[in-house]
Amino acid sequence: MNSSIGLFDSGLGGLTVMREVIRLLPSENLIYLADTARLPYGNKSPQTILECALDNAAFLIEKNIKLLIVSCHTASAHALETLQKTLPIPVIGMIQPTLDLLHGVSRLAVLATKSTVESEIYQRRIRERHPQIQIYAKACPLFVPLIEEGFHNHPAASLVATSYLEPLQGQIDAALLACTHYPLLTPLLEKILGPKVRLIEPAAACAAQARAELMKRNLLNFETKNPRREFYVSNDPEKFHRFGKTFFELEMQSVQLKKNKNL
Amino acid sequence: MNSSIGLFDSGLGGLTVMREVIRLLPSENLIYLADTARLPYGNKSPQTILECALDNAAFLIEKNIKLLIVSCHTASAHALETLQKTLPIPVIGMIQPTLDLLHGVSRLAVLATKSTVESEIYQRRIRERHPQIQIYAKACPLFVPLIEEGFHNHPAASLVATSYLEPLQGQIDAALLACTHYPLLTPLLEKILGPKVRLIEPAAACAAQARAELMKRNLLNFETKNPRREFYVSNDPEKFHRFGKTFFELEMQSVQLKKNKNL
Repeated sequence: MNSSIGLFDSGLGGLTVMREVIRLLPSENLIYLADTARLPYGNKSPQTILECALDNAAFLIEKNIKLLIVSCHTASAHALETLQKTLPIPVIGMIQPTLDLLHGVSRLAVLATKSTVESEIYQRRIRERHPQIQIYAKACPLFVPLIEEGFHNHPAASLVATSYLEPLQGQIDAALLACTHYPLLTPLLEKILGPKVRLIEPAAACAAQARAELMKRNLLNFETKNPRREFYVSNDPEKFHRFGKTFFELEMQSVQLKKNKNL
Repeated sequence: MNSSIGLFDSGLGGLTVMREVIRLLPSENLIYLADTARLPYGNKSPQTILECALDNAAFLIEKNIKLLIVSCHTASAHALETLQKTLPIPVIGMIQPTLDLLHGVSRLAVLATKSTVESEIYQRRIRERHPQIQIYAKACPLFVPLIEEGFHNHPAASLVATSYLEPLQGQIDAALLACTHYPLLTPLLEKILGPKVRLIEPAAACAAQARAELMKRNLLNFETKNPRREFYVSNDPEKFHRFGKTFFELEMQSVQLKKNKNL
């Protein structure tokens, strides 16, 4: 029960999920791994993403985690099934919690990385579960670099977002932020898409699924008073520390370097 | 003599060098490798970049190349010496040819990736060779993603470039494009920096060094009438093919996939 929950993402994005996990499960020890040496995942091949995910998971398993949250939609799209089959602990991804949030939607933009869009996992799973929803999948490959470089409030991000989203204006009633980085662009996306478009962001639902999973297995931690929050990155700990504090107001005692076995 | 010249970069950038090699050595067979699965190099650690470079070089050596051009400043900064020591063929990088172009400059902006700037290789080598030059090194980490996504003529690129370069306005008389991607931004950089700032771009000088090296070793190929131009990428051949044709007007018979040993 004192074991940590592990989370990984290519970079800062998964911290939007970690923030919700902290809100919902404040006593849990947490380990976050950002695979910044291999960022971005979103334009890599499925096989490469799977190998990254397996390497990240192995690192966290060695830290004796009790639950793994794949807090990255791209890795969830390409690696979740394999991780769930091969790891000795429960594994949660971003896709299942997202599907629960789509009731009442009729015309949905799925905003995601190129790789997530091309996996067609959302298109397929939404069609199965909510066959009435009309889906407009849109890859937004520059969002992650802009966010990782701290340009998410910069007018350049606004121009890029307008270029991606303009064709969707008037076509949709909801937009799914199917990349854990994208919530950092929420004010901008709201402005571009207008007040009639609901933004759907699955971080809180993902945290809720993690809680349910731990509760079911009697693994919840209610006792720890000052839970550990450990951070690992595969490249540039200093930058991660600075941005993590600024964006997420997360107290980061230290950010440690993970040496990737593969590049 | 019929063996190919090999070039590698993380993506499209090195094609700016290949273009000059074709101009200067039109009869040579060429093999270009874009390591798009690990793009961008510019925010990776020196060790990671070295490992990528060794893997790329090994791939090209297997293709029996007679000369290697490291057509990437970041890889030149971190891997050139090791490649020159360990490979059985001559190896040319971007740094030496660049240094020859700085005569008459007094206040120079070095525009490069984060990793090249942090390596301090240009700062050090320019100080040794041209001690009178005042150097302003500036990392421009979003330039490579913007170019790779085809946004180099988009107003967003202009805003990003202005944000990077505004502090340099009035401070410099020349700007070194110390990343092989950056020549694609030339019209934009000229506009932002103004007519008094000379842009220095070492692709042609690098091609000239390649010719001199081959001439010295009696390895020049004057005979081949329809030289081979082979292209390999480690991710998304279709995108590379489309962009390579559009940006560089390069005839690409085919773009083949290289499977990376490491990720």
